[in-house]
Amino acid sequence: MGNVQTDYKGIKAIFFNCTLTKSPQPSHTDALINISKEIMEKNGVETEVVRTIDHDIATGIYPDMREHGWKHDAWPAIYQKVKEAHIVVIAGPIWLGDNSSITKRLIERLYANSSDQNEKGQYLNYGKVGGCLITGNEDGAKHCAMDILYSLQHIGFTIPPQADAAWLGEIGPGPSYGDKMDNGERAGFDSDFTNRNTTFMTWNLMHMAKLLRDADGIPAYGNQPDQWDAGIRFDFANPEYQ
Amino acid sequence: MGNVQTDYKGIKAIFFNCTLTKSPQPSHTDALINISKEIMEKNGVETEVVRTIDHDIATGIYPDMREHGWKHDAWPAIYQKVKEAHIVVIAGPIWLGDNSSITKRLIERLYANSSDQNEKGQYLNYGKVGGCLITGNEDGAKHCAMDILYSLQHIGFTIPPQADAAWLGEIGPGPSYGDKMDNGERAGFDSDFTNRNTTFMTWNLMHMAKLLRDADGIPAYGNQPDQWDAGIRFDFANPEYQ
Amino acid sequence: MGNVQTDYKGIKAIFFNCTLTKSPQPSHTDALINISKEIMEKNGVETEVVRTIDHDIATGIYPDMREHGWKHDAWPAIYQKVKEAHIVVIAGPIWLGDNSSITKRLIERLYANSSDQNEKGQYLNYGKVGGCLITGNEDGAKHCAMDILYSLQHIGFTIPPQADAAWLGEIGPGPSYGDKMDNGERAGFDSDFTNRNTTFMTWNLMHMAKLLRDADGIPAYGNQPDQWDAGIRFDFANPEYQ
Amino acid sequence: MGNVQTDYKGIKAIFFNCTLTKSPQPSHTDALINISKEIMEKNGVETEVVRTIDHDIATGIYPDMREHGWKHDAWPAIYQKVKEAHIVVIAGPIWLGDNSSITKRLIERLYANSSDQNEKGQYLNYGKVGGCLITGNEDGAKHCAMDILYSLQHIGFTIPPQADAAWLGEIGPGPSYGDKMDNGERAGFDSDFTNRNTTFMTWNLMHMAKLLRDADGIPAYGNQPDQWDAGIRFDFANPEYQ
Repeated sequence: MGNVQTDYKGIKAIFFNCTLTKSPQPSHTDALINISKEIMEKNGVETEVVRTIDHDIATGIYPDMREHGWKHDAWPAIYQKVKEAHIVVIAGPIWLGDNSSITKRLIERLYANSSDQNEKGQYLNYGKVGGCLITGNEDGAKHCAMDILYSLQHIGFTIPPQADAAWLGEIGPGPSYGDKMDNGERAGFDSDFTNRNTTFMTWNLMHMAKLLRDADGIPAYGNQPDQWDAGIRFDFANPEYQ
Repeated sequence: MGNVQTDYKGIKAIFFNCTLTKSPQPSHTDALINISKEIMEKNGVETEVVRTIDHDIATGIYPDMREHGWKHDAWPAIYQKVKEAHIVVIAGPIWLGDNSSITKRLIERLYANSSDQNEKGQYLNYGKVGGCLITGNEDGAKHCAMDILYSLQHIGFTIPPQADAAWLGEIGPGPSYGDKMDNGERAGFDSDFTNRNTTFMTWNLMHMAKLLRDADGIPAYGNQPDQWDAGIRFDFANPEYQ
Repeated sequence: MGNVQTDYKGIKAIFFNCTLTKSPQPSHTDALINISKEIMEKNGVETEVVRTIDHDIATGIYPDMREHGWKHDAWPAIYQKVKEAHIVVIAGPIWLGDNSSITKRLIERLYANSSDQNEKGQYLNYGKVGGCLITGNEDGAKHCAMDILYSLQHIGFTIPPQADAAWLGEIGPGPSYGDKMDNGERAGFDSDFTNRNTTFMTWNLMHMAKLLRDADGIPAYGNQPDQWDAGIRFDFANPEYQ
Repeated sequence: MGNVQTDYKGIKAIFFNCTLTKSPQPSHTDALINISKEIMEKNGVETEVVRTIDHDIATGIYPDMREHGWKHDAWPAIYQKVKEAHIVVIAGPIWLGDNSSITKRLIERLYANSSDQNEKGQYLNYGKVGGCLITGNEDGAKHCAMDILYSLQHIGFTIPPQADAAWLGEIGPGPSYGDKMDNGERAGFDSDFTNRNTTFMTWNLMHMAKLLRDADGIPAYGNQPDQWDAGIRFDFANPEYQ
């Protein structure tokens, strides 16, 4: 039974799986995404998972790279999904202690669209909520999450409490999340810490998305770039040296 | 005139200035804090600035280090202010591209208290809002902000959109924020970018603090550690391999 | 006149330009690379610049992704150049305070080859020297360099002193390195700090490359993975608790 | 038996243990340091471990903070040891995915001395070799190492291959390095990965220290700040736009 006191109907979530592995090969990150996705679905949230590497996304800093010499660019179509989403979760693996190149490319493309505005004159992602999920085999989850969550808040997302979760094994070579181990079990599936954090992240994303939807987003005062450029100062006063 | 449509009375903000310079020496970071502080005060927010290095805060990972061999520890008293605050802004300088040791010690002590719970059984910082302000002379603001904002969300704070602001000059040795330059002006005081971002950060912190106060915090479902430990699963289902 | 006391003949350097911009569009990073490249060439070092995005490099974690479902992969051919190089410099732009996705992909592919060994049984990059060059418009050079230099030393490169250089303007939107400014000058070209650091980096890379070449690389004792796996312990003793 | 082919007599190494725990409480980091220290000693290297928190080191950015309002400052005396050392290893714990405040303070103080020069007119740390050791219980070793090794190379140290080692357990709460576990064993002591990497790091530090000692340091050409300031350009040519 779900959380009966709230209603998440109409809320949409998109999960980006930034694995380096193309479909139909299995992705370790998918298994962690599924935990969060299923909780959301049980509570009426509409979800979608995009395995980023399966799409022919161009590399660059413009909204549509087809206008800049690239033959194909799947990003503009995917960005439509971001525009419609209330919750965006960036998930991915760790390589050498950092995010994958696919995660970085996703962030570059989100950044390329970040000057778009909503009807209130705020950056478009205002009112959206962001989180992240990381799978590795030994080290780097917090470092990856730092970068992802920073980027999301920088381009307008709200980050609710404890908006990241991860699985990591002991240092050194070892199984990745979901790998079958010698004892027949799947690595990480019984991690109380990972299961708890993924659940908390999921609920906090849903709570904050609902809060912001019910409030019609972040109030539009003091945060509209065009008004600032027009000279409105929202109580800002020039600094004085003391 | 302030923002007439909202009322921030009763909202409290605490700014930590993590400069390495003791009072009464001037702090570059103070000048940036003041911009934000004044906007808040004009709108009824009660503010306080704590210059961390002026207080005899012990180093360690326990809430009160006097119970662990330290003669003095100013932290427990300062932590009372954090408990009462709705908004916490961590501000500080950059050294070698990273946060100061004083910023790190503050984060360690906040972390040491992070298992405290509110009356709803959530971690105590749930319902609080966090931001950061960075001053350097050439490089590192985003890197420092990444670490601070990650730490804050990790221990329960909500991070609203664009919750960081900073000033940096051109690469290489040069004036710090507020330093008198050869032309008689103060470095960074005319930076439209810094002024705008500091203003936006300030309003987003106030908006989110009010939103959370009006909502009585983050809804208490799916995010209470004791309930999880008691076996309640909030729609979490064990992962399955696909 | 060059440095007459040393002879760098036979030393090869490869610069990777990890810009997001394809040829023939100009690259800001190229201008910084050229400073270093020209100093090397004046002293007999053989240099090559690879603009990574111009090559159809696959994404993934294997030495040759054509064996893993990719139609094309320019990496195996490029990796031959790395094998022959004594000096590797990773150069690139900053996006949202971090390295570009093209830089990350390069690191992933270098990492994929990192278990290759030399004839002494050390990892193949032992004896090679690494550095980095970063161009941005406002912030993030040290953060990017941290990640690049860490990755290089992790896979066997030696990092000489002050092995990074960069250019950054004042915080906020502004010209990138080499952009024509209103006064007709090129942004950053007169930065004494950038010019000095690029020069120092270049000489330190050359000095260390020569030192290692003359010494026939890092001595092969205590650092050969196969010998460790065979049980040789090189004076290691099991830790004891004290 | 040690490595008979080389002679490390006269080489000095200093390990900084940046634990947050004062003596005589045991430190997890000490156990890892000991592995490296013992290998060095078996080969004639003179070693010393400084537990940083046991010393009354002031906070700030000057070589001697007693000249800037602090009553005590143990740093100037400790810095003498750094000056005499050929190898410096910074070791420490992880808090919230990052280095401890004690590690950061050490880096600040090393940085404060970083404009000192040797008799060849290079920064004083030229010719010294740096490494790092990290202990945590679940995540963050590479992130911490990134920051430490970057800082060391930035102030003149050479970083040899694979100059970092660490131990981490599986994600979530758990034993720290050396903690007694339920089965009576010490956490991490049987980690082949940690043992190997610590051994490799140690040998690479020794090899590079000897290489640099035998070469009388990094050649003094192209890297002396006073000569640059005097107008000597070491083949640097002003960049041109292409």
